[in-house]
Amino acid sequence: MNSEMAEIKVIKIGGNVVDNPLLLEQFIHDFSAIDGLKVLVHGGGVMASQMQKQLGQQPVMIEGRRVTDGDTLKVVTMVYAGWCSKHIVSLLQKNGCNAIGLCGADADLIRASKRPPVRKTDSDGSVTTIDYGYVGDVDPKKINAGFLHSLISAGITPVICAITHDGNGNLLNTNADTIASSVAVSLAGYRTGSSAEVSLIYCFEKAGVLYDKDDDKSVIDRITPEYYSQLKQEGRVAAGMIPKLDNAFDALEHGVKEVVIKHAQNLLNSTGTTLNE
Amino acid sequence: MNSEMAEIKVIKIGGNVVDNPLLLEQFIHDFSAIDGLKVLVHGGGVMASQMQKQLGQQPVMIEGRRVTDGDTLKVVTMVYAGWCSKHIVSLLQKNGCNAIGLCGADADLIRASKRPPVRKTDSDGSVTTIDYGYVGDVDPKKINAGFLHSLISAGITPVICAITHDGNGNLLNTNADTIASSVAVSLAGYRTGSSAEVSLIYCFEKAGVLYDKDDDKSVIDRITPEYYSQLKQEGRVAAGMIPKLDNAFDALEHGVKEVVIKHAQNLLNSTGTTLNE
Repeated sequence: MNSEMAEIKVIKIGGNVVDNPLLLEQFIHDFSAIDGLKVLVHGGGVMASQMQKQLGQQPVMIEGRRVTDGDTLKVVTMVYAGWCSKHIVSLLQKNGCNAIGLCGADADLIRASKRPPVRKTDSDGSVTTIDYGYVGDVDPKKINAGFLHSLISAGITPVICAITHDGNGNLLNTNADTIASSVAVSLAGYRTGSSAEVSLIYCFEKAGVLYDKDDDKSVIDRITPEYYSQLKQEGRVAAGMIPKLDNAFDALEHGVKEVVIKHAQNLLNSTGTTLNE
Repeated sequence: MNSEMAEIKVIKIGGNVVDNPLLLEQFIHDFSAIDGLKVLVHGGGVMASQMQKQLGQQPVMIEGRRVTDGDTLKVVTMVYAGWCSKHIVSLLQKNGCNAIGLCGADADLIRASKRPPVRKTDSDGSVTTIDYGYVGDVDPKKINAGFLHSLISAGITPVICAITHDGNGNLLNTNADTIASSVAVSLAGYRTGSSAEVSLIYCFEKAGVLYDKDDDKSVIDRITPEYYSQLKQEGRVAAGMIPKLDNAFDALEHGVKEVVIKHAQNLLNSTGTTLNE
């Protein structure tokens, strides 16, 4: 263990990794082998949608975000904070990584605000109101970084799922990419005398950000904010990547040292796309 | 907060409390009002059975214990460690009690052994083998009492569900009464210079141990081991109470100061049945 807390890696995996037993097993093995301080943030959306369907619910997604009524909230809490979290933790324990599965309500780790209904103007000028329900928006200032630091210092790796709370008895479904970047920002900003250098690693099903979305080999090595603007102007960035990259650059602006976007299989290799200022 | 760690209350609620919104809300309010160090252990069996049925599974119980195949394990983990745990924690946070929801895999809190198939001889002399599946038996010596003490000392109340692990990547369904008594024994036996006086409180749907099972007013005030033997000989103890009382007297023999069995509504009153040596 690095007792100077010089470097912390915040690593995020999506539901497609959690739901793939072989990929998950390899990832957990690699994650456990990382020498140094680390935090895992995980999704579980694939399994949540399956469980909703098994229970006769119809998942409703708007712009990639799940509309979360009371029944949906129960399912995502069961799947993310229950099965996914504890399954991952038990596998980490098997691999010698002492981990703890947390949601945002635990130790008041992540307090979020319930998103108010959003008004959208469609291309034809008509206005619709979208109520996402029990969906939370995170403020990095309301993350209990002190508790995370105390766990990490004690050799316990936090495993954080995408459920937060509002402090008023409501759990809230929250985007896992945003949780990862907010946790990274919060850890970077938390000063305990010894400053922490935080890097943020998004693992997903591609080898990195692609220059040509149809060519898996066209991974871009490095993206600066200027190059990102240029890529967006050229229409080079897939729509699904834009929120992830916006999150990433936001984290860089708020004290995170480096963001890497890579395939979950490549955790221990120096591949992928690196974002920095 | 009592920094001398003079007294810790381990309080257990069953699935019938967790599944009853009004009763749960009152219990959480009362639990939060307890001044002093405390741990909550909860079940969730009623909701697990409902969820199993909603998913087309048929719950199988033998002598009150749930036979737990792979599909059942997923459901009980989702229900106990997911919805029940995080719902309880969010309500505690609302009531000003800083809590953290844990299963046995978290921070290697409770390592259990998978129960081997059990041979049973029936009254007609025939022998059957019962395989409970992913069911765990707990050894109080394998409870990470140091971690619980560190949380409690930091003002964080542990909320423990009935899922443990074997250290080899398997989660295990474990009896919540046994977890409560094992946690109490473990906390009582953990010496940090200042000794801890641990009491164990089982909250359930009756006002205490009844002398006449058909008369809810016939609560027995106090039971010693000798009196317990006498009550059993007289056939006074309901079959369902025997494992709970055996657990309780076992805890008393292993360092727990006092065990109280009472209604969940009476947490703050000095009612119920007190067991001591």
